[in-house]
Amino acid sequence: MTPPFSFELIHTSKKSRARVGKIHTPHGVIDTPNFVGVGTNGTLKGLDNATVHQIGLQLMFCNTYHLLLQPGTDVVKEAGGLHSFINRSLPIITDSGGFQVFSLAYGSVADELKSRGKKKQDGMVLKITEDGVLFRSYRDGRKVLLTPESSIAAQKDLGADIMICFDELPPYHIAKDNLQSSLDRTHRWEERSLRAHLQNPNSQALYAVIHGGVDPNLRKASCDFLTALPYDGFSIGGSIGKNKQEMFDMLSLTLPRLPTDKPNHLLGVGDLESLELCVPLGIDTFDSSYPTRAARHGVLLHSKGPLNVTKACYARSREAPEEGCTCSTCSQYTLGYLHHLFKAKELVSMTLATIHNLHFMVNKMKQYQELILRDEI
Amino acid sequence: MTPPFSFELIHTSKKSRARVGKIHTPHGVIDTPNFVGVGTNGTLKGLDNATVHQIGLQLMFCNTYHLLLQPGTDVVKEAGGLHSFINRSLPIITDSGGFQVFSLAYGSVADELKSRGKKKQDGMVLKITEDGVLFRSYRDGRKVLLTPESSIAAQKDLGADIMICFDELPPYHIAKDNLQSSLDRTHRWEERSLRAHLQNPNSQALYAVIHGGVDPNLRKASCDFLTALPYDGFSIGGSIGKNKQEMFDMLSLTLPRLPTDKPNHLLGVGDLESLELCVPLGIDTFDSSYPTRAARHGVLLHSKGPLNVTKACYARSREAPEEGCTCSTCSQYTLGYLHHLFKAKELVSMTLATIHNLHFMVNKMKQYQELILRDEI
Repeated sequence: MTPPFSFELIHTSKKSRARVGKIHTPHGVIDTPNFVGVGTNGTLKGLDNATVHQIGLQLMFCNTYHLLLQPGTDVVKEAGGLHSFINRSLPIITDSGGFQVFSLAYGSVADELKSRGKKKQDGMVLKITEDGVLFRSYRDGRKVLLTPESSIAAQKDLGADIMICFDELPPYHIAKDNLQSSLDRTHRWEERSLRAHLQNPNSQALYAVIHGGVDPNLRKASCDFLTALPYDGFSIGGSIGKNKQEMFDMLSLTLPRLPTDKPNHLLGVGDLESLELCVPLGIDTFDSSYPTRAARHGVLLHSKGPLNVTKACYARSREAPEEGCTCSTCSQYTLGYLHHLFKAKELVSMTLATIHNLHFMVNKMKQYQELILRDEI
Repeated sequence: MTPPFSFELIHTSKKSRARVGKIHTPHGVIDTPNFVGVGTNGTLKGLDNATVHQIGLQLMFCNTYHLLLQPGTDVVKEAGGLHSFINRSLPIITDSGGFQVFSLAYGSVADELKSRGKKKQDGMVLKITEDGVLFRSYRDGRKVLLTPESSIAAQKDLGADIMICFDELPPYHIAKDNLQSSLDRTHRWEERSLRAHLQNPNSQALYAVIHGGVDPNLRKASCDFLTALPYDGFSIGGSIGKNKQEMFDMLSLTLPRLPTDKPNHLLGVGDLESLELCVPLGIDTFDSSYPTRAARHGVLLHSKGPLNVTKACYARSREAPEEGCTCSTCSQYTLGYLHHLFKAKELVSMTLATIHNLHFMVNKMKQYQELILRDEI
């Protein structure tokens, strides 16, 4: 019998740690390295799931925090799980909810990770204890306790192919002692997540989250601790640096400490520059809302670099947004029309741009796979 | 040789004035009676034109006023006309721009037509003379002069299959003398529109606009005046009453005065109740933004009456939004999921609801055609 979840390593480049593989899941295969589209509420912003399927996105990332509060994981469970609820037949990964809850406590995620230092959103996170986090729902004000066990239970209700351990997301600016205690607690939470999961594996996989912030020794310690436990894969989370160089340095020491026979995932990173840096380090999957968010702001991913379709110079263009692109946007509409739709603030402008950007990412990752198979990166 | 535009009357009901016909245009046939979707800026809000085509909408209404200001009718002309610019191969109808400009002068169109009496938006309309209307662009502040000739020129640039004469939209609350002078000037403007059109017919059709507000004698006079001129069809505009009864009374006396061998169009009316009232009066086409606007507010058209998908009672529904509906929304997603997407404020909620409502309208009109052919209405 085929195991419900397995990783097949197909080729490692002769030139770098870059690798091509296949993650087998109950809902099909994810070819790696690959891009994971973010569908927070069970949909990629601007696209319906049939369109996402057609474009060929193999793995979608949904957020447990959001789904817990709306519609409620009980509603999703009752509907037969997330795949059935959102009508997606391909693999889904969910996170633990911790990331969003802690970003409430420590300020906006992006700002904090980039150490811009934004003010706390006091009052939403009520208490952080050894047990877990008590927070207030932004939707209806009710108190919600998120613990390793309740996060795993929620992810079981959602029925994602891949789940992620409950962890603490410490702020970038944190004293070393505090980072150490945060890491220790995160490890305890991740162990509890694993125990909760193994009580009812349910054909789902569980990824640990490597933490340790930008402290090399703590990162190493986190790898050593977590890889000794029987997780199905390893994601890399927490603050991964305030710039690409810090991220590169941290990943360069982390990746060699992860088992090569299990898949890994870089959380929340998927811009083109980061892919270029991180694919050679051996990252298997990347999730990022960048391509879809950029699209909604009129920025099209393009082989010649990002193209801002709202610029006046495109008003009279009768070319496809990207020449040679086979996406349904580029094959049906001109850059000039897309420009007009953005200028006229038509909703569909965002949909058409998102289709292109997602198609771009799917193709980009196929190209990476081919380059690695030819040992060219 | 087939004329570029013609109306084929197929059947008139034995029970009413309801009729089934075919409007032949350079971009294909419009079966009547039919619903005309409003695609103000060259797109039905929330849908791309390939989707609109798939759903089977035979005629799309675009607004010259909006297209004149963004992207500019010169840009559309340069792109080969509206069909080419927006990539629609089926028929398009454009209005003259007058309706929007005068609604600036006399307050919000819906409010004014419904005689709710809203304040004027002073400063946008600068001058109304025998020549036309001078107004200020809301986009860039430049002054634009709209006259019968410039409106027809703009509609020639757009290249719609059906154009509409430039007219004045008088307010609902208007003294009889003023309504008479407005009507006289509108008739002069419509004659000028016809002359401008006939200088270069360009395979396009031109509809007159019957005016006269809610004054029966003026409506009759307008029919008599305009039907003596060689328009390709007749639309009914202006204030058509402050309630359904006034509208019904006015249309009941107007329709018999229009030639049966030419198509007619009721401007800006297309809600289900009005269709029920007006199809038996012999209206051929109806345009309305109601089905698409309702969709964006979570209201689904349904054989059992409008369904507000945002109601809490639908949160756990695992049924299709409308049982038996073959639209891509109903055949792929549940009411519960659609409810969730609206609650989570996901863009795609509007798209999915719009697909359903448009499909509903297309089917509704096919049903009317069948009922008329069977003399059942």
